[in-house]
Amino acid sequence: MRALSLGPDGPRLVPDHPFAVRPGEARVRVSLAGVCATDLELCKGYMGFSGVLGHEWVGVVEDAPDPRWIGQRVVGDINCACGACATCRAGRPTHCPQRTVLGIQGRDGAFAEQLSIPLANLHGVPDGVSDEHAVFVEPLAAACRILEQVHVRPSHRVVVLGLGRLGQLCARVLALTGAQVTGVARSSASLSRLPSAIQGVRADAAESLEGADVVVDATGNPEGLAMAGRLVRPGGVVVLKTTTHDLGTATPTDWVIHEVTLIGSRCGPFAPALRLLAAGLIDPIDLITGRRGLDDGVAALQEAAAPRSVKVLIDPR
Amino acid sequence: MRALSLGPDGPRLVPDHPFAVRPGEARVRVSLAGVCATDLELCKGYMGFSGVLGHEWVGVVEDAPDPRWIGQRVVGDINCACGACATCRAGRPTHCPQRTVLGIQGRDGAFAEQLSIPLANLHGVPDGVSDEHAVFVEPLAAACRILEQVHVRPSHRVVVLGLGRLGQLCARVLALTGAQVTGVARSSASLSRLPSAIQGVRADAAESLEGADVVVDATGNPEGLAMAGRLVRPGGVVVLKTTTHDLGTATPTDWVIHEVTLIGSRCGPFAPALRLLAAGLIDPIDLITGRRGLDDGVAALQEAAAPRSVKVLIDPR
Repeated sequence: MRALSLGPDGPRLVPDHPFAVRPGEARVRVSLAGVCATDLELCKGYMGFSGVLGHEWVGVVEDAPDPRWIGQRVVGDINCACGACATCRAGRPTHCPQRTVLGIQGRDGAFAEQLSIPLANLHGVPDGVSDEHAVFVEPLAAACRILEQVHVRPSHRVVVLGLGRLGQLCARVLALTGAQVTGVARSSASLSRLPSAIQGVRADAAESLEGADVVVDATGNPEGLAMAGRLVRPGGVVVLKTTTHDLGTATPTDWVIHEVTLIGSRCGPFAPALRLLAAGLIDPIDLITGRRGLDDGVAALQEAAAPRSVKVLIDPR
Repeated sequence: MRALSLGPDGPRLVPDHPFAVRPGEARVRVSLAGVCATDLELCKGYMGFSGVLGHEWVGVVEDAPDPRWIGQRVVGDINCACGACATCRAGRPTHCPQRTVLGIQGRDGAFAEQLSIPLANLHGVPDGVSDEHAVFVEPLAAACRILEQVHVRPSHRVVVLGLGRLGQLCARVLALTGAQVTGVARSSASLSRLPSAIQGVRADAAESLEGADVVVDATGNPEGLAMAGRLVRPGGVVVLKTTTHDLGTATPTDWVIHEVTLIGSRCGPFAPALRLLAAGLIDPIDLITGRRGLDDGVAALQEAAAPRSVKVLIDPR
């Protein structure tokens, strides 16, 4: 099959990539996939991954051990857990130390004509949710993860730093709580994409937002953590969505003195994300800035890395 | 009065330090005070403090606007809040931006014959609690603070990194939950001070403790944060008691991938600390390694900085 595969020389289209469904798993034909910042980081060497990229997708089950799935339009959790270790048995399968992660760790991903995925990971997509909406379920679930970890209250003041792919979704999900949400970005293009209910502030004026109850760092930049520490109120919460090894100028002493809580936040629950899309409470369609066929996959990655780009889709059909 | 005061040339005994009780506050004659790691940091320039050091103390009220306090043996919260600002009104007086902090920020402390403190900060000491026990209320409250912030469960595995003044108290308080608590220290002397119910492990063997539900960094060392990140399980909690501006080799990316929660933890509630002492559930007397008169205050600070020292008391009487 055709697949966009990451090798030692970077990503390239492989016209005859070998494919075999894993024992006990479903075979899914990919309808649409989305490029994520993580894909761009993987291309730079993050996680040391090699193989087919892509973990945001929607597709149709073509074969499965349980025939009820066959023909269904689906999305899927990207963490494939062993189900048997102490971590899985403790109810934390997304942290299973033996896990593979679709298109990220030990398992081929979705920038391909087909993928293999455990039945336990599948979620049916309601008829009212288009492929273009459903392809956002994975990052939208990651935004919902914040509300699993932090009790954001209607009276809270929330700041989202960074309004890229994930930051836009975080701001929109958090605004559903009734909280006063402000998005911060360096570019006016990013700010202009905020729905009218969400205030936008340029990064160079962000210090005016001091005293926030909750600050989400979705900058992808080492300095995001330091800025979050300056903006959060004593006793407040900083949610870390940025994966960067560099700490920038963050000062843990201030976290202690001001008793700040920092929470690392990664993948989230698919079912609420599907509900928000089905109810029309979140509409991410305006975030799509590009769409290319799988044969143009390398160009799609380049496009996604460009400054004004938000979500670039890859259509493997 | 005599007082141990920190000035540009370091700490020194001042035989005739001026003293005046602040309007509306109590005048307390100090019976006994304790040296804390923070005092040693202040002497190195931390917080830019100058004035009388000391924030762990027990004393007797000699004068107060409310006569019911006069003659009472007391301890006192060290954060003196304005009571009127938005932070105070939101119920977070220990984070009042206008606050003074006894012996730490904008207010003379307890290494002196007398101190001035607001009535709202006072707690009476029960008869059954000796001065030698009561002088531990402030650091014991800081240990209790962890249980205000984190739900430590009886089935949890807890690791306390650093078994100095505060680490010993944290380990003992956390062990009261029924959790399996392990203390980690570099020196066998520190490990030998752990009560028998608490396991001790040398720092060079600490990696065997991986997968802990809760890790408390009380090392006072920049590398404590990195070690805590290695030992905590995915989804677990790291409590930060160390105030250090240097981040060491900590990797925030791992906090995100493993969804770790980090919680800065500072001062705690005095009433529970007094209850634990009165009930005999915590007995810190074995941690006293030195006791000197106020005239020997500079030597007391030097003694407290020595490797095998734990709690050094200063008796100003």
